[in-house]
Amino acid sequence: MNKYILVTGGAGYIGSHTVVELLANGYKVVIVDNLVNSSYDAVARIEYICQQKVPFFNVDIMDYEALSQVFREYDIGGVIHFAALKAVGESTKIPLEYYTNNITGTINLVRVMKEHDVKTIVFSSSATVYGDATRFENMIPIPEECPTGPTNPYGRTKLMIEQILCDVQKADRSWRAAILRYFNPMGAHPSGLLGEDPLGIPNNLLPYLAQVAVGRREKLNVFGNDYDSHDGTPIRDYVHVVDLAKGHIAALAYLSKLESGNGLYREWNLGTGMGSTVFDVYNAFCKSIGRELPFEVVGRRDGDVLNLTARPTRANSELEWSAKLSVEQACTDLWNWTTLNPFGFQLKNYGWKIFEENGKSSYASRLHTVSFPESEFLVSVANYGATIQDISMKGKSMVLGFDSLEEYQQSSNPFFGATIGRFANRIGSSRFSLDGSEYKLSVNENNRTCLHGGINGFDKQMFLGPVVTFSEADKEFLLEFILMDQDGNNGFPSDLVCKVKYKISAGKVKIEYSAEIPSSSKSDSTIVNLTNHTYFLLGDAEISKVHVQTETNEILSVDGELLPTGLTEKVSDLLLEGVILADQAYDNCFVVEKNGCQLDTRKQPLMKHLEALSSTKDVKLEVASTEPCFQFYTGDGVNTEAFGPRSGFCVEPGRFIDAINSEKWKSQVILRKGEVYGSIIEYSFT
Amino acid sequence: MNKYILVTGGAGYIGSHTVVELLANGYKVVIVDNLVNSSYDAVARIEYICQQKVPFFNVDIMDYEALSQVFREYDIGGVIHFAALKAVGESTKIPLEYYTNNITGTINLVRVMKEHDVKTIVFSSSATVYGDATRFENMIPIPEECPTGPTNPYGRTKLMIEQILCDVQKADRSWRAAILRYFNPMGAHPSGLLGEDPLGIPNNLLPYLAQVAVGRREKLNVFGNDYDSHDGTPIRDYVHVVDLAKGHIAALAYLSKLESGNGLYREWNLGTGMGSTVFDVYNAFCKSIGRELPFEVVGRRDGDVLNLTARPTRANSELEWSAKLSVEQACTDLWNWTTLNPFGFQLKNYGWKIFEENGKSSYASRLHTVSFPESEFLVSVANYGATIQDISMKGKSMVLGFDSLEEYQQSSNPFFGATIGRFANRIGSSRFSLDGSEYKLSVNENNRTCLHGGINGFDKQMFLGPVVTFSEADKEFLLEFILMDQDGNNGFPSDLVCKVKYKISAGKVKIEYSAEIPSSSKSDSTIVNLTNHTYFLLGDAEISKVHVQTETNEILSVDGELLPTGLTEKVSDLLLEGVILADQAYDNCFVVEKNGCQLDTRKQPLMKHLEALSSTKDVKLEVASTEPCFQFYTGDGVNTEAFGPRSGFCVEPGRFIDAINSEKWKSQVILRKGEVYGSIIEYSFT
Repeated sequence: MNKYILVTGGAGYIGSHTVVELLANGYKVVIVDNLVNSSYDAVARIEYICQQKVPFFNVDIMDYEALSQVFREYDIGGVIHFAALKAVGESTKIPLEYYTNNITGTINLVRVMKEHDVKTIVFSSSATVYGDATRFENMIPIPEECPTGPTNPYGRTKLMIEQILCDVQKADRSWRAAILRYFNPMGAHPSGLLGEDPLGIPNNLLPYLAQVAVGRREKLNVFGNDYDSHDGTPIRDYVHVVDLAKGHIAALAYLSKLESGNGLYREWNLGTGMGSTVFDVYNAFCKSIGRELPFEVVGRRDGDVLNLTARPTRANSELEWSAKLSVEQACTDLWNWTTLNPFGFQLKNYGWKIFEENGKSSYASRLHTVSFPESEFLVSVANYGATIQDISMKGKSMVLGFDSLEEYQQSSNPFFGATIGRFANRIGSSRFSLDGSEYKLSVNENNRTCLHGGINGFDKQMFLGPVVTFSEADKEFLLEFILMDQDGNNGFPSDLVCKVKYKISAGKVKIEYSAEIPSSSKSDSTIVNLTNHTYFLLGDAEISKVHVQTETNEILSVDGELLPTGLTEKVSDLLLEGVILADQAYDNCFVVEKNGCQLDTRKQPLMKHLEALSSTKDVKLEVASTEPCFQFYTGDGVNTEAFGPRSGFCVEPGRFIDAINSEKWKSQVILRKGEVYGSIIEYSFT
Repeated sequence: MNKYILVTGGAGYIGSHTVVELLANGYKVVIVDNLVNSSYDAVARIEYICQQKVPFFNVDIMDYEALSQVFREYDIGGVIHFAALKAVGESTKIPLEYYTNNITGTINLVRVMKEHDVKTIVFSSSATVYGDATRFENMIPIPEECPTGPTNPYGRTKLMIEQILCDVQKADRSWRAAILRYFNPMGAHPSGLLGEDPLGIPNNLLPYLAQVAVGRREKLNVFGNDYDSHDGTPIRDYVHVVDLAKGHIAALAYLSKLESGNGLYREWNLGTGMGSTVFDVYNAFCKSIGRELPFEVVGRRDGDVLNLTARPTRANSELEWSAKLSVEQACTDLWNWTTLNPFGFQLKNYGWKIFEENGKSSYASRLHTVSFPESEFLVSVANYGATIQDISMKGKSMVLGFDSLEEYQQSSNPFFGATIGRFANRIGSSRFSLDGSEYKLSVNENNRTCLHGGINGFDKQMFLGPVVTFSEADKEFLLEFILMDQDGNNGFPSDLVCKVKYKISAGKVKIEYSAEIPSSSKSDSTIVNLTNHTYFLLGDAEISKVHVQTETNEILSVDGELLPTGLTEKVSDLLLEGVILADQAYDNCFVVEKNGCQLDTRKQPLMKHLEALSSTKDVKLEVASTEPCFQFYTGDGVNTEAFGPRSGFCVEPGRFIDAINSEKWKSQVILRKGEVYGSIIEYSFT
């Protein structure tokens, strides 16, 4: 398991589910996908689901050099090969594209494998290679011994690849080639985050039904009801995609159990052994969504045959694999996927671009933008620090941000828009003790203090995800980021899984933080304090022009190192009146709730912290949170190329400064395994 | 017929024979070949045989861009696709190379065709696609309807390509795809100039037998004599390669007869319908060479089957094609080919390189070198002007020559080593009359005279060929060049086909010229006078040091324009004594045979003209010819960057100066259709 499994087409339907199963089974995975018929969002969601980074390369398997580079970069132990065009109907119309992509592509892949001495391949084949198995006696359910005879170019590409792999293995017996002949994959990941997302008109039954159900298509076309089945529609062997994905793990395991030096070429059917007609599936789906869907019986489709039910006994016995999930389960999972993602990975008014300056096209760093065209409200969030790069209204930016990742990565970046963690604000002497252990944190201020989590804080890490969905009911986008912070990073104990969810509706950005110590963590306690470090300006020229009114003027008294003395004091009442004097610098913790808070404040009501009105009086910002205090900062230390001091002000709701080193406050920030840290911040613009 | 037929693999065995047939049938041809398993010499010989230039590109069909460039450059009307790896046995050992070259290559080719809207293809398939047809009842002889089932990777590549073309044609009915399933090609071109030249061990029976016959292989391996045939060896349908080549013409003609817009995909067997066993062929071959050859029966070969005899009735009736030539004829032709070319296109001590300076890799311009290592004698001849670029002995050059084509192409080049034609020496006033017509030639001397054939003389044209062979008996290389000079070039009437044959043995270069007016010429008479314009120096520093002794001191008297007065005179007797005075310039026509000569002097005995001895006395040159006179020139007008005046002397045997304008001499140079001009020049070095 030390070597990587390279998955071609790993962003696709079956590919993405297989990657999830591989990761769940401890395999390391590299994904190669040209994204021609798939979406990178699937990869982002795999990473989110599996809570780990998965190397991804936007490489076409036709590109020998680029593919070879991946093999040089990663120690590949085997390949699961999905990448292919896969629509039967389309293949009869543009066969050359099918032969090019599927055959030339596979030959190329195998050549690269050979060059790098990688000789294990699991190949995504299809029951289509059998063609009309009813032309023989006693061949339903179809065994692997059934003579092949595909009736369309797609099926022929699959059979040719089988033959090529067979010949390659015959010539060099050390090759291990597992041919998995899929019957009809259906369903989706139970998380609702992965599923089939055919671009254009879906060629498979369930996705089509789902699109009818969400109103994206008018009705189901039933291609022929004059077949020799119980209801006249063709019989297929529908297998849940998660079952199918597990078949690949079983095949890999089987190949790895061969004696050293021994090779193999063998085909296995992956099917349930149970046939269902088009109407059977139609009925199951209608039942699972609770209503009848329109359909129309149209003519037979070129290349379709009556019955393709598998005899899966070879896979059952040899691979110790069998399909467990029912057609009903598949319908339920598909419907879950569809309601969460009615247009698959495509989302209206959401888009992303690579956010990278130095020419490398790394999908890990992206900039995600959601927009509300009617109210001209737009929010951009980067994977880097799960940073709010922009919030704009009517074309005017409300916040400070950079146009390039490079600028964010400069040391002069004063945490613009970033997620702050593992511990926001200052920790005195960069030290704390917890459960009898003393921890020394990384120092990044005045040679003494640990500020905002230290040198390699959350603001400087690439968050995984986001999972982006849209709630039609709430007219709200949800962007879910996740970060796995390692035990020892910046000196903090325990692994930490931190989720940052942006709920964005017209004029409103609501941020929900949560953090947990994963069960796999060796240590089982740590400290957490999370916030967002956006600099607001509301389109004004300078902050002194903005009318900024806090809800309280009580602040924590601090010493010369800006650490709390335990006392509070009042600042000028001018702030309650909305006035920031031009010469008045603030970097103070305003107390909203003297009594502090629980570890997870998300159940608490939102408390208004501050409101700000632009000088033109056309923009009002309200900041609220579930947190007991907020740091108010007038940005006097800002000194970047693009922005100078007092270019914006920050409102950073969170826990009390250095709470871990205060007996009365420390319970706010100590997180133990099994517990959940949580908080909510909301920015409202009107 | 206005468009070109692109032939992939046109330098190969069947490809080259097909190109010859295409040209013979009036098609224009472009050859594309990567020369991986073939030789450019085949192309040179095609051009020699067909007496025309054939565009050639050293392009791999895997290279989309380079292939596409050929389609842009030439107006291609259809493709005959041979390019492929083709050895059954090898295909089981390196299947991936077979799939890459054959499948990926063909897909690439078809994509390029599609891009350029070329939709006619004749595909070189194989009877191997049927596999063991004896597995069915009543399938011998094999009809096209026989189910396919190739038993080796090579056969599978052929079948896959058929299927790909079939699907492409189904998707776009305007494609015209003729699938020609060859049975067993054998034999060679009756000229003896083209044949099978397998690199490495031949995989086919006759080439193997031939190699045994010439002693290149020890014995024939008979792969199994336990088959169910009359003598236990497998039965094949051997078809003469010339018959096979003609099948492609028939297929093209068939496709072109389809109604406009109509397409077709159809397979045709190309076979005789008559099966022969391995021993049948063995016996026929032994009979044709008049002796028994050693053989050994070894084990069966992987992938071989008992019987692959064709039922060729579909090709007989639809294509109106049938095999005409017998196995015996094939054996005879093969033996002819083999004796002329015992090592195929490879020839020991012969090599060539591209002779081109400007980065263009044009195979039309090559420099051919033959050598006799024992005597350290080496001769290099270029296609450009069929020019002797070098004659060297023991590392010392005997003649003047340039290292680059560029230098030869400069106007200052004083005809170094070139073939001089159509009319050597001067023609007075650049005019002559013939059969009542007056001809004005191109002027290239003193604004008045036509020297050495004019501005675009033979010296400045690319000769086709050479055909290079070696006679073991005479220890002599033969390099045969050919030039088709057009009617009107330089003002001369009639097309002219000129052959220049260099017979080179150790220390000797014998040049044989011949010229004829082709039957296709519109005019039917012209004038000819051919010679070679080598400058000799024999390794000396200047010609005055060389002892040069003429056989005669009688020269033609000339006027101020160096044209003959009709009288003769004597030059200094010093020349008979071998002395060229340092200040004495010669450019004189020495008369060897006052009575002149016939049009073709080749049957005449060689007459010694001159001998020369180097100052060191270690090299002696003798020049002899069948010609009545020779121009002796001391090179006083030479003025190139590398060589100045008197850097070498010339001996140019030929006809009398301006003979066409002299009543008593003109018969020496007038050539009429049906007649042959001929002469021989010999340089001997000792």
